[in-house]
Amino acid sequence: APAAPGSAGESSDFDPLLSPTAYADGPDAGPDGLDGPAACPGTEERVGILLIDHGSRRPASNEHIHNVATVYEGSLRRDASAKVVRAAHMEIAEPGILVALRDLITHCRATRVVCVPYFLSPGRHSTEDVPRLISEARDALKGEGIEAEVVISNALGTAMPQMLGAIDVLVDGALVK
Amino acid sequence: APAAPGSAGESSDFDPLLSPTAYADGPDAGPDGLDGPAACPGTEERVGILLIDHGSRRPASNEHIHNVATVYEGSLRRDASAKVVRAAHMEIAEPGILVALRDLITHCRATRVVCVPYFLSPGRHSTEDVPRLISEARDALKGEGIEAEVVISNALGTAMPQMLGAIDVLVDGALVK
Repeated sequence: APAAPGSAGESSDFDPLLSPTAYADGPDAGPDGLDGPAACPGTEERVGILLIDHGSRRPASNEHIHNVATVYEGSLRRDASAKVVRAAHMEIAEPGILVALRDLITHCRATRVVCVPYFLSPGRHSTEDVPRLISEARDALKGEGIEAEVVISNALGTAMPQMLGAIDVLVDGALVK
Repeated sequence: APAAPGSAGESSDFDPLLSPTAYADGPDAGPDGLDGPAACPGTEERVGILLIDHGSRRPASNEHIHNVATVYEGSLRRDASAKVVRAAHMEIAEPGILVALRDLITHCRATRVVCVPYFLSPGRHSTEDVPRLISEARDALKGEGIEAEVVISNALGTAMPQMLGAIDVLVDGALVK
């Protein structure tokens, strides 16, 4: 039988389709080994996806979005999509947006990058600050001779059916406790 | 033909199953009339659901979660669920947690309330601050002779399959633009 999710040394068993409540340590018991740059095997051109949150002084908060990126990339790989997923922070923590975009384009050969503002409401961060930082990063990369198509999606929390589904799952989980 | 969603005076057409990108003004073009206390028709006992975010100095950010609550309640009503949904803020903006819980229990006759921390990561707000504020509110209500079962769910962003689904939808939407 497989080890219980979240048990020591078994974090590679992290399964995005399991409820986070199934993990002893929560969803952040997920993938290890996120400190170094992740591998970008193969030589084909890719779509890059960059999840961008604010950045926190709490390492656990910063790790969360990197875990989400890793799990999301893993879920895409099953579909054999030529997509590579990374996370970056607006400020406070590394990697910032410029560093992550440069890595996606040069190291991971992304020719198109979709930046996803990982914020719940379409507030100032997702509608003004992140677009400005992306624009500045794009200009800086252009100065380095590095170019790719970089677009920005709506804020995560504007995907209303998915948010309602999340509330549903969490309410049901709390009611059966 | 129905008016385009998001057009002036037609916000009651807000449809949670439509992509937020279908609305000219985004999902916050949603339901009007959220300023006063919403109606709680009927006399049956209910499950209350309280969405709790941080609270912002920006009215648009505060309105967002109330719109989500209204849309979510509307989606439940179609299932004839005896559930009533409200939103509250940790601080800065009204209603706070105490006011919202009191309203759910006394005005809306909720005998059980599930509080959903509307935060993306299981950080300090959702794991420490919100539970503490709920506990304080429960004690205050007990002092007023108002009691109900109040439980707290995991943070919104820990519903991993739904968050991955949201990323998928947003990335696809950005790539076809």
